[in-house]
Amino acid sequence: MSRIEIVDLKQNVLDDNDEMANKTREKLKAKGVFLLNLMSSPGAGKTTTLVKTIELLKDKMSIGVMEADIDSDVDAIKIAETGAKSIQLHTGGMCHLDATMTEQGLDALGIDDLDLVVLENVGNLVCPAEFDTGATKNACIVSVPEGDDKPLKYPLMFQVADVVLVNKIDVLPYFDFDMEKFKENVALRHPGIPVIPISAKTSQGLSEWIDYLSNLILS
Amino acid sequence: MSRIEIVDLKQNVLDDNDEMANKTREKLKAKGVFLLNLMSSPGAGKTTTLVKTIELLKDKMSIGVMEADIDSDVDAIKIAETGAKSIQLHTGGMCHLDATMTEQGLDALGIDDLDLVVLENVGNLVCPAEFDTGATKNACIVSVPEGDDKPLKYPLMFQVADVVLVNKIDVLPYFDFDMEKFKENVALRHPGIPVIPISAKTSQGLSEWIDYLSNLILS
Repeated sequence: MSRIEIVDLKQNVLDDNDEMANKTREKLKAKGVFLLNLMSSPGAGKTTTLVKTIELLKDKMSIGVMEADIDSDVDAIKIAETGAKSIQLHTGGMCHLDATMTEQGLDALGIDDLDLVVLENVGNLVCPAEFDTGATKNACIVSVPEGDDKPLKYPLMFQVADVVLVNKIDVLPYFDFDMEKFKENVALRHPGIPVIPISAKTSQGLSEWIDYLSNLILS
Repeated sequence: MSRIEIVDLKQNVLDDNDEMANKTREKLKAKGVFLLNLMSSPGAGKTTTLVKTIELLKDKMSIGVMEADIDSDVDAIKIAETGAKSIQLHTGGMCHLDATMTEQGLDALGIDDLDLVVLENVGNLVCPAEFDTGATKNACIVSVPEGDDKPLKYPLMFQVADVVLVNKIDVLPYFDFDMEKFKENVALRHPGIPVIPISAKTSQGLSEWIDYLSNLILS
């Protein structure tokens, strides 16, 4: 018997966000635009990964980025420096984007000339997973310093993710992160999804990620 | 002029959680119990810091811990190993604890024989900051790998924090984290609050943190 007493607090209830998300997905498909919803904890390296991804894909396709944050525009400035079309979304304190907010972003960005749009969601492993944004695919980044137990604590994020990137593998020697254990923990939540180790800083592993993403977009 | 278009999405609205939180705070004061609300991103080191804090304080005072998570009980098991009274709270998918949920936790823990209760909030820099739990003080941990720009992106967390710990300073050489810049960014959000650099892994800086916390509790 566990020494730990477990107290279950109140349940969260969702609304009919899904209908709006499905409409967005259909519209994007009709226009030939792939929307990637990029989610992670604060500081896991979404923006750095995105900058590298843009550099490696921009000769093959036209890319736009929606940077969502509570405040500041530091990330959108970094993205704009890559030459990609970029806007900043402020969520007014909200911890996530829902389908309606994503639609506002897509309208503001203008997507008719784009092949790939990336939504960099608010840095948060909880709320963004609860709302279908209408994205074609969901990617989640976990960084080595966060630890290999994240799929145990934030199950929904890994259930909704189509692919998981493990960033900052250049610092693996300095942290107690067991990659095989992490892959097992991901598989507990979402069997079969790919887990791709990368370092956005050193570019290690990025070719596998770029091949994976290119295949999705062009298929 | 900025190249970045900024789109403001909808505002969040809070309810009357504050009244409940104030009642909790009064009750705790009357009982002589200090409640510390510990907040951070996922993987910033809340549990490791807490384990070390308990080890350094347990001979001076009686300590209880409420571990809040979406799922799992891995952290509460680690805390129980220190000998501290410990319970796991599951939030049913919720991204934070409000004052009512905290009350449920305090009732389940039983606080009459305790001097210090620590609420380890859900790993999240957004939602926990929006709800007064009734805690005596709020502490926020940011870890070096997350970057020095976090106060710019998550302003409310730093506005409600009474103290900020910078954890994982043992890996400072491997990351682009500017401590002075971070302190400036904290001061933009909340001038005058202490910023204490620590490594929960190597124990560096912990004596300053323990002195600070002891003084708060015993004053």
